[in-house]
Amino acid sequence: MTVGEDPASPGDRAATLRELGERGLIERVRRRFGVSSPGVLVGIGDDAAAVAWPGRTLLLTTDTLVEDVHFRRSTATLRDVGAKALAVNLSDIAAMGGEPRFALLALACPPTTPVADLDEFFAGFADMAGRHGVALIGGDTCAAPDRMVLTLTLVGEVAGAPVRRAGARSGDAILVTGTLGAAAAGLAALERGPLQVPADVSAAVCRAQRLPTPRVAEGRLLRASGFVTSMIDLSDGLATDLAHIATESGVGAEVRLPALPISDATREVARVLGADPWAWAASGGEDYELLCTAAPEHAESLARRVTRETGTPVSLIGEIQPLGTGVRFVDEAKRIRAVRPGFDHFASAPWNA
Amino acid sequence: MTVGEDPASPGDRAATLRELGERGLIERVRRRFGVSSPGVLVGIGDDAAAVAWPGRTLLLTTDTLVEDVHFRRSTATLRDVGAKALAVNLSDIAAMGGEPRFALLALACPPTTPVADLDEFFAGFADMAGRHGVALIGGDTCAAPDRMVLTLTLVGEVAGAPVRRAGARSGDAILVTGTLGAAAAGLAALERGPLQVPADVSAAVCRAQRLPTPRVAEGRLLRASGFVTSMIDLSDGLATDLAHIATESGVGAEVRLPALPISDATREVARVLGADPWAWAASGGEDYELLCTAAPEHAESLARRVTRETGTPVSLIGEIQPLGTGVRFVDEAKRIRAVRPGFDHFASAPWNA
Repeated sequence: MTVGEDPASPGDRAATLRELGERGLIERVRRRFGVSSPGVLVGIGDDAAAVAWPGRTLLLTTDTLVEDVHFRRSTATLRDVGAKALAVNLSDIAAMGGEPRFALLALACPPTTPVADLDEFFAGFADMAGRHGVALIGGDTCAAPDRMVLTLTLVGEVAGAPVRRAGARSGDAILVTGTLGAAAAGLAALERGPLQVPADVSAAVCRAQRLPTPRVAEGRLLRASGFVTSMIDLSDGLATDLAHIATESGVGAEVRLPALPISDATREVARVLGADPWAWAASGGEDYELLCTAAPEHAESLARRVTRETGTPVSLIGEIQPLGTGVRFVDEAKRIRAVRPGFDHFASAPWNA
Repeated sequence: MTVGEDPASPGDRAATLRELGERGLIERVRRRFGVSSPGVLVGIGDDAAAVAWPGRTLLLTTDTLVEDVHFRRSTATLRDVGAKALAVNLSDIAAMGGEPRFALLALACPPTTPVADLDEFFAGFADMAGRHGVALIGGDTCAAPDRMVLTLTLVGEVAGAPVRRAGARSGDAILVTGTLGAAAAGLAALERGPLQVPADVSAAVCRAQRLPTPRVAEGRLLRASGFVTSMIDLSDGLATDLAHIATESGVGAEVRLPALPISDATREVARVLGADPWAWAASGGEDYELLCTAAPEHAESLARRVTRETGTPVSLIGEIQPLGTGVRFVDEAKRIRAVRPGFDHFASAPWNA
């Protein structure tokens, strides 16, 4: 935010979407449409919307994948793309603690697309859908002149209240599932070409980038514990997504960099490329792990329980602070370290500069 | 279908999406994913999907608008585009006899897009949403390199069973709301530039093309009557969409060309351009009227009732025939007249020929 800007009117002086930024656009839409509507429990600005429906809470989320923005045909198979289109939406339902049920797919595609490629896409989609019990029940198809654009909408449900981004309280522990930075390591590895690392190291980080593992069972267990106060999935990077929790909850946050879970493969790729694995873990996007906050007295046992029941490590990485401290990262000596913000779709886009 | 092709395997020999066609793609997806799932009342291949949910039936539909495919910035304002993105989805909910409730918007946009243009888009969207009591509760935003791509998902509901495309019976009357061919007349008028017609004539057909009126109240009344056996909205043209009803219902159909409701403005534009208004009415897409079938003994009184309660004319235009007669159009002397099929997104697309 620039000095003198009215905090209630984000982006009012921005001329283009690039200046407004992704968050500015969402805030602008939320100001226009964010009036409360009957039955709407969670509206614009969370991982998924939630609607009170007789007996159950309905969760709704939608995500678009654009060819050459979210994936490249040169580095990803359409089988991976089909699975990823569903996975990123599954991750949003997971972040609410919900259970995925039904999917709609809107597919805009050049008419020259080989049918065999589409079959690959649907094979990947079907595989991911089968693993999570999701039924594809409808959609739309149309022609697009120059590239594939896929929009998947996923309907889920939760018995009772979903976990929101808002809800973290000062003193809460900050937890994260899995490991961080592997997707960024994979992107770097794909961009730099063959690396001097063992094949399994390269395969591990490339797989993390190409096809995330949505943490649906983990999200469900975290919510069901009753100890989780806020949750989000890590799509734009820890620094950016933790800031979303802090903003929505009206708190600050402190993350201990040495506590960030980083896999051996990510460290090895960073070493070979001369990169900083903590920077990848703090700012790299697309890990699609779950980030949540929990009452401090229950955090450690909760982490152990989810790890035991799912096999996915859960780490305590920091603590929620009072409002006014911002989101800060500290090293082992408790010194504050600068961290790049994560990805912003409009500000970070490379075209039309 | 080419001779010798296995009717159970549409498009198995097609190499590209253009050869497979829109319907072929949908059939292919339906074969893979169309297994019955618990709770799914209507799956792939209708105007909207329907899911049994405690107490109410949930309707779900999604539609994509691609810049330079579904709209052009040179002939449509973004205010119209915002309204149309919602209108075409409202039309799908209307075709099930349902009530629209919640919307999700996925917006892929070039970063150079002026914020003022987006404000126009959302103003048009908000206006249409307000008219139909729809709440925008979530979505997604991302950058697209070369054009806007909007995907709107609409959630509706219906108390009990929705009206499907399948259900028409031989002998049923065929009914249509409003008038036909105006959107095609508007497209022709926009493409040919200023016409020698009165300004209100030109405005009427151009408005029909730019911004359809979804027949939500009409659809609800038609379903509630209990006499409607099948329904679809006219997006691809009467010939194509009636064929969908015929195929899904396992019947044929005969339409009386002289019975097609064509507005004076459409006739006037056709006269000036030397075009055939019946061809526009039979094959022109994007009218977004409702086409339905009803028990013959109730059809006339049903049409009168819906007209009286909504102000929208409802016309009887033909009769459902036994399977085997196909979908045919006849003139006043009962002679069969050839009619072009409607729009197929992939086969009709002008690029990459």
